[in-house]
Amino acid sequence: VELVIQYISVAGCFALAISGALTAMHNRFDPFGVLIIGFVTAVGGGTIRDTLIADRDVFWFYDPYTLYAVVAGVVLAILLRKRIKYLNKPLLVFDTLGLGLFTVTGIQIGLDHDLHPLICLILGTITGSFGGVLRDILVNEVPVIFKKEVYATVSLAGGGLYLLLHHFASDATWPSLVAAAFIMLLRYVVVKFKIGLPNLYGKDILKKE
Amino acid sequence: VELVIQYISVAGCFALAISGALTAMHNRFDPFGVLIIGFVTAVGGGTIRDTLIADRDVFWFYDPYTLYAVVAGVVLAILLRKRIKYLNKPLLVFDTLGLGLFTVTGIQIGLDHDLHPLICLILGTITGSFGGVLRDILVNEVPVIFKKEVYATVSLAGGGLYLLLHHFASDATWPSLVAAAFIMLLRYVVVKFKIGLPNLYGKDILKKE
Amino acid sequence: VELVIQYISVAGCFALAISGALTAMHNRFDPFGVLIIGFVTAVGGGTIRDTLIADRDVFWFYDPYTLYAVVAGVVLAILLRKRIKYLNKPLLVFDTLGLGLFTVTGIQIGLDHDLHPLICLILGTITGSFGGVLRDILVNEVPVIFKKEVYATVSLAGGGLYLLLHHFASDATWPSLVAAAFIMLLRYVVVKFKIGLPNLYGKDILKKE
Repeated sequence: VELVIQYISVAGCFALAISGALTAMHNRFDPFGVLIIGFVTAVGGGTIRDTLIADRDVFWFYDPYTLYAVVAGVVLAILLRKRIKYLNKPLLVFDTLGLGLFTVTGIQIGLDHDLHPLICLILGTITGSFGGVLRDILVNEVPVIFKKEVYATVSLAGGGLYLLLHHFASDATWPSLVAAAFIMLLRYVVVKFKIGLPNLYGKDILKKE
Repeated sequence: VELVIQYISVAGCFALAISGALTAMHNRFDPFGVLIIGFVTAVGGGTIRDTLIADRDVFWFYDPYTLYAVVAGVVLAILLRKRIKYLNKPLLVFDTLGLGLFTVTGIQIGLDHDLHPLICLILGTITGSFGGVLRDILVNEVPVIFKKEVYATVSLAGGGLYLLLHHFASDATWPSLVAAAFIMLLRYVVVKFKIGLPNLYGKDILKKE
Repeated sequence: VELVIQYISVAGCFALAISGALTAMHNRFDPFGVLIIGFVTAVGGGTIRDTLIADRDVFWFYDPYTLYAVVAGVVLAILLRKRIKYLNKPLLVFDTLGLGLFTVTGIQIGLDHDLHPLICLILGTITGSFGGVLRDILVNEVPVIFKKEVYATVSLAGGGLYLLLHHFASDATWPSLVAAAFIMLLRYVVVKFKIGLPNLYGKDILKKE
């Protein structure tokens, strides 16, 4: 289990580092700023999770692979910046990969600490979504997950599925893969068919914004 | 004492969740965004406090009532959104409730850890005010407590009173209630009579902003 | 070593509190907001570092001198606000002092915890730079270190020097002083000669912004 978590965590960091670096370059940050935003986007959610749990050092302290994955993701994003400059799709793909992988990791860590399933879900959502929230705060924008994108909801649904599967499974490997795949698929469907959450504000949303 | 802290903490979360949800809806967040802002506003101050103290898990890990209070507050705010849309008063009331209750809780936890009274005051102010600061950061605004509202100052004054009463009292129950009530009253007076902190900038503030 | 770290930490807090207070006054915060921004700017980087390390209370819990330095810096900045209102130089000087001192402190604490040198560098950069990042988030601006200023890069370079010197030195005192001085000098040179990081975006940066 430990090893599986570590693999998907490194892959998620790589994906989210690319997502962060693309956002930073879109905002024309300098190279070091691009690196920092990539780093914060990649490790931010898991870092918040780990600071919430009193006896956990942050996960990247003893795991240099996470850092290598971040640096690799940022460098790749910088090298390919001209090709992906006007493409939203890669950003979406990498964001979704990170979301699926990290949600599962966060829930698993919560379960390892014998926390209430509801708390585990919250930890999963934080791990999956809050790297992106920190990214948007640092580039001084309203976090996209709160308005434009059905993001955290997907994370929550997949997290619920994981908890369910985990309850019946003997090990954590295949539930984590199924739940991560489910999250990615669900998000793809949501984006493809432009499914949104119910609008609380009536039609006058068109007038005001 | 533990129990009193827990009760007022749950009540404060309920109040601040409403305050957060109202702000999020004012910014036209989607339902899940409203829930997250409500959650962060409610537990944010206490969460920062708990991460600062090395050996404390965050308070809502083992306390499902906090989460129920947050969800109840957010749902209530969503249901009543049409009635309270144009009213600033409820937001003010709930904000003030949370401020009073949480300031006292934060100081008490500082005292439990044998921290210097000045540090306890800071922890109280963080607990009382920083949920709202996080709320404002997430909706991408300058935190209101820094410019428009005499908020943290009230928290500090009431916190000082609590420390004084606590020094002479045999238990923490009535000092905490008196100090919380004092904070709410003081804030009411401050808002009612539009009392502001001294202006550092002379009259040209009118020209610039 | 402990004592040296404490001295330079207090001096760095004084410097960064001034920097934070100046920024807050530039944004016309009320007196308490100026105090809070000064406080967060001064202790923010070190506080993030300490929350990342599971077994560390934040450094200012048991060190009232830090708080006195913050209050002194804020009060000084308020008293002198008319003289330094239109001067960017003092802000730069104090920022640079804090950067140099805190970077070294952060790396030293990482070394004390037997962390990987790369992680120590990151902790040094966080300690040196992220107080300013929090300051800019709180005044709702894009952190200056990501776009306009070669700041974190300087911190990183000086941090590397410190790790090198520390490897060969018998105690930590003179390497920390040399590295801190190097960071300040390097930043002075960078600002003086307007050295920037390579531009990733071609000349159209002029058109877009």
